[in-house]
Amino acid sequence: MSNERPIGVFDSGVGGLSVLRELRKQLPGESTVYLGDEARMPYGEREAAEVVLFTRQAIRWLARNADPKLVVLACNTATAAALEVVREDSAVPIIGVVRPGAAAALSATSRRAVGILATRLTVRSGAYYRALRDLDPLVDVLQQPCPKLVPLIEAGKARSDEARAAVREYVAPLLTEGAVVAPGVDTLLLGCTHYPLVRWAIEEIGGPSVRVVDSATTTALAVREVLASHGALSRAASADHRIVATGARERFRAVARAMFTEDVEVEEAALA
Amino acid sequence: MSNERPIGVFDSGVGGLSVLRELRKQLPGESTVYLGDEARMPYGEREAAEVVLFTRQAIRWLARNADPKLVVLACNTATAAALEVVREDSAVPIIGVVRPGAAAALSATSRRAVGILATRLTVRSGAYYRALRDLDPLVDVLQQPCPKLVPLIEAGKARSDEARAAVREYVAPLLTEGAVVAPGVDTLLLGCTHYPLVRWAIEEIGGPSVRVVDSATTTALAVREVLASHGALSRAASADHRIVATGARERFRAVARAMFTEDVEVEEAALA
Repeated sequence: MSNERPIGVFDSGVGGLSVLRELRKQLPGESTVYLGDEARMPYGEREAAEVVLFTRQAIRWLARNADPKLVVLACNTATAAALEVVREDSAVPIIGVVRPGAAAALSATSRRAVGILATRLTVRSGAYYRALRDLDPLVDVLQQPCPKLVPLIEAGKARSDEARAAVREYVAPLLTEGAVVAPGVDTLLLGCTHYPLVRWAIEEIGGPSVRVVDSATTTALAVREVLASHGALSRAASADHRIVATGARERFRAVARAMFTEDVEVEEAALA
Repeated sequence: MSNERPIGVFDSGVGGLSVLRELRKQLPGESTVYLGDEARMPYGEREAAEVVLFTRQAIRWLARNADPKLVVLACNTATAAALEVVREDSAVPIIGVVRPGAAAALSATSRRAVGILATRLTVRSGAYYRALRDLDPLVDVLQQPCPKLVPLIEAGKARSDEARAAVREYVAPLLTEGAVVAPGVDTLLLGCTHYPLVRWAIEEIGGPSVRVVDSATTTALAVREVLASHGALSRAASADHRIVATGARERFRAVARAMFTEDVEVEEAALA
């Protein structure tokens, strides 16, 4: 394996750019290829079989067009629904965001009670629940599907009263869930790469005693650790970054530009 | 939850006593109840559905008769085949040996190539493979079913030439597996609680450059960590230990006596 091969990053849309940003920050010598399936996003309300198919197509595209040394599944829904299946039939090593996210939540919670905010499919898959219970079989886990959030964020309403109301509807019950976990969770895990955009509302409603955790930082750390342990970190003098989308390139370019404060070319690809 | 409730430990037979020993060493204040399903062991060549049923019965027995604060599934086969299923429908928190074992193997390997020695059912379940790949998606994993070992050990032939020959048959290919992992694995994980009894042969054939890892120590560490993080360690002045078997109590007593260098009562139970 050549250490100069890029790291592939796949997300259903622009959300995984937050993971990409952390990767580029923590691993400045690594080249990256980001693939966003903008044309078919969001994945969170789809059937599991469909998400498996799309994820398989994305991994295959990355393998053929970028020859990555490692692929980061930066989409919670894809990780939850497809990681284990796709890993079985793929020669490319794949790392997901669920295990690093679960580990981060367990590091944060002092009362050992974690709330998971995620898409319906991620909640239904039980992947976070299993990952948390596997690391700590005594931890209390409350899962909350948040179907309104991605559409609101995609509609540009991340900073709206509507977003605040939706977040309140989802978050408030986790903080007072007397019957199941009293007095509620002390840590909220953002189990969807879109949710950092409504983090302000989650923090507002959670209040100062609730910790909000996302998986971008810990996933990037996990990638660095894995590559380092294999002696597979790049020694190249400069890194090369490509961003590829299956649609809506202009929107993609605007988001990426804002995130990386640099001009960004967005290539187009078709998945099948 | 009362912190003085015991830790339950379940194994298909006497193998899990090595996990119990580590638990008692690392957590001397904790009471324990060990349940060995001696009448129906070994589990390693059974069907998965049967192991799920037996494990479910064992957890239910422990819940009713010992009210444990946590159950350790000290059997690799039961963990691999049944942990996720039984965890879903059990109110008792359960910790298995696979994740701690996988973590221990990854700490040991410097060439990032691990060999798993396990029963057929454990290998077939893919649980170790998944746990290792989840922690390190680049690690090379060679799985080796070792169907001759448990019968040999159960027949009292752990120290025989026959055992050495069987171990050679299983271990030698992992060390020279040129096609898959060159130059072979540098770490062997004992993925069955019986195998520490043929560790001498595994170390002899592995040679000084191969590290042999078992999950007893890391599982006990994981239990301690989990209880500590929940403030659930016992503060009792003295600990109480029960050993319960579904059959062959005399054999059980002899093994336990040798292990704990004290006289041990073995109670009898029937699982259904």
